[in-house]
Amino acid sequence: MPPQGQPEQVPDDGLSTRQRRDRPLLIVHTGDGKGKSTAAFGLALRGWAQGWPVGVFQFVKSAKWRIGEEQALGVLGAAEQGGTVAWHKMGSGWSWLQGRVDPHGDPAAAAAEGWAQIRRDLAAETYRLYVLDEMTYPLDWGWLDVDEVVTTLRERPGRQHVVVTGRRAPAALLDAADLVTEMTKVRHPMDTGQKGQRGIEW
Amino acid sequence: MPPQGQPEQVPDDGLSTRQRRDRPLLIVHTGDGKGKSTAAFGLALRGWAQGWPVGVFQFVKSAKWRIGEEQALGVLGAAEQGGTVAWHKMGSGWSWLQGRVDPHGDPAAAAAEGWAQIRRDLAAETYRLYVLDEMTYPLDWGWLDVDEVVTTLRERPGRQHVVVTGRRAPAALLDAADLVTEMTKVRHPMDTGQKGQRGIEW
Repeated sequence: MPPQGQPEQVPDDGLSTRQRRDRPLLIVHTGDGKGKSTAAFGLALRGWAQGWPVGVFQFVKSAKWRIGEEQALGVLGAAEQGGTVAWHKMGSGWSWLQGRVDPHGDPAAAAAEGWAQIRRDLAAETYRLYVLDEMTYPLDWGWLDVDEVVTTLRERPGRQHVVVTGRRAPAALLDAADLVTEMTKVRHPMDTGQKGQRGIEW
Repeated sequence: MPPQGQPEQVPDDGLSTRQRRDRPLLIVHTGDGKGKSTAAFGLALRGWAQGWPVGVFQFVKSAKWRIGEEQALGVLGAAEQGGTVAWHKMGSGWSWLQGRVDPHGDPAAAAAEGWAQIRRDLAAETYRLYVLDEMTYPLDWGWLDVDEVVTTLRERPGRQHVVVTGRRAPAALLDAADLVTEMTKVRHPMDTGQKGQRGIEW
């Protein structure tokens, strides 16, 4: 059911309800269950419907797994109504580097390039909603500096919402987040030999 | 990370990998956390991208909370590429009953009307993917018969995928499901007095 709009407590932070309502959120979807990225892309639908510029950054090697979402958000971003969608993926070389780097090169360097662009976009307030898809992995693997990422996200200007997805989100990121949801696997068809299938897994 | 396609065990069910791969899934998103419906609508993007007819049935009183998703899936369903989207909501009277019933009438009867239509659509194989949004509530409240719903879902013909969302999913539904994800709230801004906001909550 939708929340009824009654907060459990009113904070003593000197802000009006409106100021709190408009507070930019740092959201994390983590855990071993399904739905972390899927829910982030669902959130992108809401941002698009608000007319927001939405930026998606995919930190995955294979570009295969989000083709449905990319196609859908591409159609939406090009529609006459709603906001815009910029889709960037690491697997094929980041779009702003296209042709200038080897897409099959060092993945740690590619992750760092992706984060550097996000940092520039946050400073420039390029988007209202950022989907940082599976960015927990380069954090977990030490390819990105957790403290630097968390500080940059905490100190981002304006009213930019950020959603980070992936397993094993670092504690410092969870501490900094306004909203954390853990997706827990209760039952999955792969447990009984089912393979991933079209339209469900990608 | 995407699943690597290696099932944990191979079942002794006499089915080929392909037959198992194409098995229609009953999926439940439950728990007290956010992302249950959002992930279901994200899944609808994948189904749409496969060219599937997608049917959404919203079991909520207020139509306010999914306007972003409804707008987005409306644009997608009308696009030249991808599948179709039929969006039905209980709050304003189900579309197939429009003008013939009082949308502000008995909500238990309205829920039963919704389920009766889903049953007809399952029998006719109208859609490839069904999003039964927040249908756990009429089940929990006794407005729908759990055994009858579960039996109908279990025995649905063809290759129809079904996603049911909402808190307090009945045990019989969880038992029947192929894939269950529990969304757990780790931290939510409303805990500290934050109210819901545009583009995030709706």
